[in-house]
Amino acid sequence: VAERPVVPAETAAPDVAPVQPRFDLNAGSPDLTAFPRPAWLSALRRALREAPAEALGYADPRGRVELRRALAGYLARARGVHAAPDRILVCSGFTHGVQLLGLTLRRRGARSFATEAYGHFVHHQAVAASGLDVPVVAVDEHGALTELLDGEDAVLLTPAHQFPLGGSLAPRRRLHAVEWARETGGLLVEDDYDGEFRYDRQPLGAMQALAPEHVVYAGTASKSLAPGLRLGWLVLPGDRYDEAVAARELMGGPSTLEQLALADFIESGAYDRQIRRRRIAYRNRRDALVAALAREVPGARVTGIEAGLHAVVELPGGVSEDEVVERAAARGVVVQALSEYHHGGPARPPALVVGYGTPPDHAFSGAVARLCAALAT
Amino acid sequence: VAERPVVPAETAAPDVAPVQPRFDLNAGSPDLTAFPRPAWLSALRRALREAPAEALGYADPRGRVELRRALAGYLARARGVHAAPDRILVCSGFTHGVQLLGLTLRRRGARSFATEAYGHFVHHQAVAASGLDVPVVAVDEHGALTELLDGEDAVLLTPAHQFPLGGSLAPRRRLHAVEWARETGGLLVEDDYDGEFRYDRQPLGAMQALAPEHVVYAGTASKSLAPGLRLGWLVLPGDRYDEAVAARELMGGPSTLEQLALADFIESGAYDRQIRRRRIAYRNRRDALVAALAREVPGARVTGIEAGLHAVVELPGGVSEDEVVERAAARGVVVQALSEYHHGGPARPPALVVGYGTPPDHAFSGAVARLCAALAT
Repeated sequence: VAERPVVPAETAAPDVAPVQPRFDLNAGSPDLTAFPRPAWLSALRRALREAPAEALGYADPRGRVELRRALAGYLARARGVHAAPDRILVCSGFTHGVQLLGLTLRRRGARSFATEAYGHFVHHQAVAASGLDVPVVAVDEHGALTELLDGEDAVLLTPAHQFPLGGSLAPRRRLHAVEWARETGGLLVEDDYDGEFRYDRQPLGAMQALAPEHVVYAGTASKSLAPGLRLGWLVLPGDRYDEAVAARELMGGPSTLEQLALADFIESGAYDRQIRRRRIAYRNRRDALVAALAREVPGARVTGIEAGLHAVVELPGGVSEDEVVERAAARGVVVQALSEYHHGGPARPPALVVGYGTPPDHAFSGAVARLCAALAT
Repeated sequence: VAERPVVPAETAAPDVAPVQPRFDLNAGSPDLTAFPRPAWLSALRRALREAPAEALGYADPRGRVELRRALAGYLARARGVHAAPDRILVCSGFTHGVQLLGLTLRRRGARSFATEAYGHFVHHQAVAASGLDVPVVAVDEHGALTELLDGEDAVLLTPAHQFPLGGSLAPRRRLHAVEWARETGGLLVEDDYDGEFRYDRQPLGAMQALAPEHVVYAGTASKSLAPGLRLGWLVLPGDRYDEAVAARELMGGPSTLEQLALADFIESGAYDRQIRRRRIAYRNRRDALVAALAREVPGARVTGIEAGLHAVVELPGGVSEDEVVERAAARGVVVQALSEYHHGGPARPPALVVGYGTPPDHAFSGAVARLCAALAT
């Protein structure tokens, strides 16, 4: 007689039972344990001590001038952006910025705002929520096929590091995009979410510098610091600025104290230090991931440039995404299938999107080992 | 021969030349110099020290549960709101909440979202920006004429203290509004922007308690603390909650650290202390304003209940709003004409909206004296 109680098959084996994700390899987040809490508290303290009373009042919808000045300097220096304080709009992270742009375009009479065929679903949703059509532009290992742009009113691109595929937008395609914008009056939106994190060479400057009057440059503190701060910024063409400010006035925005803290954080050099430290850390993680995969899962292939906080890992032949995601889950690893980011057009080969930036240091090597085991099984 | 240089007439007399507003009586702002900086810094410090790493990640679009719990307790206790953490949505101030509700209604197929005939222009704009018609509901000294509600999909009301006219929504009209909502499925949006500040009696509880499944209750830290924090909250009917959360996910929201700081601020009792202190201060200011007007400008009449941070001052016979606003400006006082808040329907008698909550303590009596002089001239 069996002594063990009868349990349903799907919970019988402890390693396939649903467990709390101990190893988070979701893409899109930095290592939150590396947030510089003491330095941020100092910046907040100074902001709170030095802010004039009016800074606590109804906020300038453009964002605090102190922050716009600090960003203009930083973006010119670090990303080659043509930026001036009176072209910068501070927003509550990039998705907020996308919806703001969508609503602004809609009010102008625009009908479509294209996104890359692979990308964050939430950006796709934000565009759709503003009432615009969202056609998709195919992407490959060299970024979006901008030569296919046609009658769209705007297009969202990730030139520095296509999300999630990982390519850098080829120079020829950058020029195509700019020509398209000049000829049609279409708007290019450059999502530079992780432009500071390039490991193999100096980062390419922002595409915006090629045509500041046709590109909205978008940056964020979500990867460099933490998404919970909800701090992002847009650099807009002159003739799009006022309407975006008007839309922003109705759409909320970040606390002025947090804005002043970020201004202080940038001006004091703490922002550069944080990025330098994190660049080294993420680069080491990427190298470790690539080495482990080469050793343990020879059939897998890491694609994309050496940059950012995530890598695309093409699966060994004959293995499905669902299968690997499930096997990883059984080992306590949460990781996403590439197809979760697919919005239309031709599909890429089966792959995982591995957010190596996400786990805390102490969990990183365990996460990689378990991921390799799930891939190798 | 004249020794003085010839100057254009409009700048010749120093008292009519445009001067920097030294005395700000604009309505809608608390006294920003009374923001409790040390207590807020303590709350931020604790939030930053105690927040788990995940709190720095992509934010729960509902808002941090710590804050939703603190608000549920506070709102039930202080405003009689039927609130539970899973019905509360944290947003970036009230205008953000209005646009969020507007977009949500629009997605449901709604066509119109009425506002009171007198109100904040920015709320009117936020509704219109979501693509809805914005009919207006007439208001008098007893609040909105809710008996006139008809086929609107939603209506924005200020039941505790009509903004800016200053009446409290009459009990009969509250019932009318609730009946209308029950019969038509229309949504009542209760903007409780200054419900804590009533001076002549215990504040009336929120209208929301009469029909929690038909009312969205909206509150804000903008009057109790500071608008610069950009912290507000909605309490939603069960069947409207999920769609509002989905919209909020695309629309930005406040920093999780600020949310945790406010949760701490409420739970520690600091929020109640701040409100008690400010209630006394604003009450004294209101009394001083009313007394000065009775003494200096007998023809003027202060209308509305004894509440809030502003008063409506009906002008002595034969004086126009523009005239008084200009005379006040010449004395360094910025104050708004009632007609600036008028969106349609029958107009009220000429009046000023006097934001007695706005100036710092040291400027208050000077502002009142100059206002009286401008009115008495």
